[in-house]
Amino acid sequence: MAAGRKGSRTVQAAGSPVVLGPAALAALQAWTIAEARHVRHFILGDENTLRHCLPELQGHVPALREAHIMAVAPGERSKSVDVCHALWSHLAAEAADRQAVLIALGGGVVTDLAGFVAATYKRGIPVVNVPTSLLGMVDAAIGGKNGIDLDGIKNVVGTIRQPVGTYVHVPFLRTLGKRELMNGVAEMLKHGLVNDAKHWKAVCAAALHDLKALEPLVLRSAEIKAAIVDEDPQDADKRRLLNFGHTIGHAIEARSWESPQRGLLHGEAVAVGMVCEAWLSWRSELLAREALDEITVVVRERYRPHHLDPVDHHRILQLMANDKKNADDRFRFTLLEAIGRGRINVEVTAAQVSAALDHYRLLMRDGPKEAV
Amino acid sequence: MAAGRKGSRTVQAAGSPVVLGPAALAALQAWTIAEARHVRHFILGDENTLRHCLPELQGHVPALREAHIMAVAPGERSKSVDVCHALWSHLAAEAADRQAVLIALGGGVVTDLAGFVAATYKRGIPVVNVPTSLLGMVDAAIGGKNGIDLDGIKNVVGTIRQPVGTYVHVPFLRTLGKRELMNGVAEMLKHGLVNDAKHWKAVCAAALHDLKALEPLVLRSAEIKAAIVDEDPQDADKRRLLNFGHTIGHAIEARSWESPQRGLLHGEAVAVGMVCEAWLSWRSELLAREALDEITVVVRERYRPHHLDPVDHHRILQLMANDKKNADDRFRFTLLEAIGRGRINVEVTAAQVSAALDHYRLLMRDGPKEAV
Repeated sequence: MAAGRKGSRTVQAAGSPVVLGPAALAALQAWTIAEARHVRHFILGDENTLRHCLPELQGHVPALREAHIMAVAPGERSKSVDVCHALWSHLAAEAADRQAVLIALGGGVVTDLAGFVAATYKRGIPVVNVPTSLLGMVDAAIGGKNGIDLDGIKNVVGTIRQPVGTYVHVPFLRTLGKRELMNGVAEMLKHGLVNDAKHWKAVCAAALHDLKALEPLVLRSAEIKAAIVDEDPQDADKRRLLNFGHTIGHAIEARSWESPQRGLLHGEAVAVGMVCEAWLSWRSELLAREALDEITVVVRERYRPHHLDPVDHHRILQLMANDKKNADDRFRFTLLEAIGRGRINVEVTAAQVSAALDHYRLLMRDGPKEAV
Repeated sequence: MAAGRKGSRTVQAAGSPVVLGPAALAALQAWTIAEARHVRHFILGDENTLRHCLPELQGHVPALREAHIMAVAPGERSKSVDVCHALWSHLAAEAADRQAVLIALGGGVVTDLAGFVAATYKRGIPVVNVPTSLLGMVDAAIGGKNGIDLDGIKNVVGTIRQPVGTYVHVPFLRTLGKRELMNGVAEMLKHGLVNDAKHWKAVCAAALHDLKALEPLVLRSAEIKAAIVDEDPQDADKRRLLNFGHTIGHAIEARSWESPQRGLLHGEAVAVGMVCEAWLSWRSELLAREALDEITVVVRERYRPHHLDPVDHHRILQLMANDKKNADDRFRFTLLEAIGRGRINVEVTAAQVSAALDHYRLLMRDGPKEAV
């Protein structure tokens, strides 16, 4: 961690600065003036972030008051080839050159989309992330993974490319509802579980409605994410720690979109995934039973149970096989050795995954006492 | 240059091996067996290369006989978002994982397209280039630039990412017509002009119909391209040497597509661009008059004159302004100081470009005597 401007601090994620704290947007103003004064700025947001966050951004960063604004519809559907096509065309029609800077103002959808468009427009223009959701601040905006969805598969098209900077301004969270906050809390819990037992305890004890109390925890989570990315920018080993809860979680998320009901948010699916994968950790004799119970109770208290149909197991396994991280037909999980310590590259069979899904279903039907 | 297998040699382009010579495909077989035996292979070609070159490729590389074949229509139109979308979907439907290898068998269109699809599918899968056109062998397949076209702008979407290997097998040129060969010869002439006076003389003297005589020149051109890329993988300075003839050439090529007649091939447009930019080099007092005359004669003997309409100047300048390489409204050219020595980053005004286009038009109408 490096001291930054007064009221902000900067951590590095694979050579990409992540600026945290009350003065983060002042640091963005300073960067813009120093590094990108004479170039054109394009801000990409969705209708919500442009209404609720853009005035505040431009208030703190006057250098962006003349920026060209590009809007997409809110929600995952904007992470599509068609939307990319429209954004590439828009930039070309505006004759944006390779010096132009794209500023992503939004949650994970906006930063994923902006990162991909910037990585590929004219073989790469700089992108700056200004996350506005909790999930964005602690996870999606940090690390350089970008992407769009195709045929119902999340992020099947994308690259890894670092933003020139990520500026985390926690007051943007004011406008978020509880469900959106809980979406990000799942990743904060995960950061504690794989890397920092103290952070886990602190997030478990936090009062979500109190942004002042939440702020240091948000910054600590962003810092954990950045530090892990910094050790392994290309997702070769250490970074896989961050996959805890995601191997099953991603597939459950994708399956939930295929059903007629409203789909799960990413963090909600990760919460289900963490329960399943903590159970797999216990069954693999890596994790103590008490730790599994603690994790299960924390997730149950915070997330509504998700209905899993036994007939879906086959489809969930199929979606897992299509996951980028799975080579051939073996599943490689990140599991837990303890609260605060993950272990990457644990091989798990399809039968074990199926048993974990059964466990979750019974748990949610019968309550924690009959958990196993 | 490193000694390779018997009958082949390997040069490096930004960490990416370029394997040259009669045993290049034997080297690909060896690589596939050693490095990619247990992964799935996908070959992307167009209808011509799949008919004329695939049997020969699979004859030399038996490891690819079971490869999954993907076909696109021949021609620049395949470098589109829609074709990418279809290829991404195809790979996903085949459940290609991140270990899958994509082999590009074709000219610049196929290697540009395959490079972009591979760079972006599941955040990057390996791509192997097997160029089948002269332009591909000496230029497009080397250096990692990939891309697709959008709204009539060439390569406006793409990345720079090196293939895991490029295998140059000159006998594929047997099936090419003269116009296709001349398309690549333009880049070979350029390599001589910016980097190697001896190579320029040799290419000027070469008998195109004799593949045996052409082979060492093809390999030398590929080597020059690889060496320049190796010094500057990210296109920051040295690599701009390769832009000679291309600043005006690209715009003339793009303009030619907008007209109802058949468009120019890339090399044909570069030939026009080289005449214009050699003239700019002379007018900027960088290049001797004798050298300009020599270049002009060589190009006139080999390429049909292209009709340039004076009313097109404005449009050509507009297209130049949209070129990736031009920042703001200044034009930065690579010009010549001598045959065999280029100079990057020479600023040229729109009026000078317009004068160069006038020069070309008068030259082609009146013959070389009234060139200036």
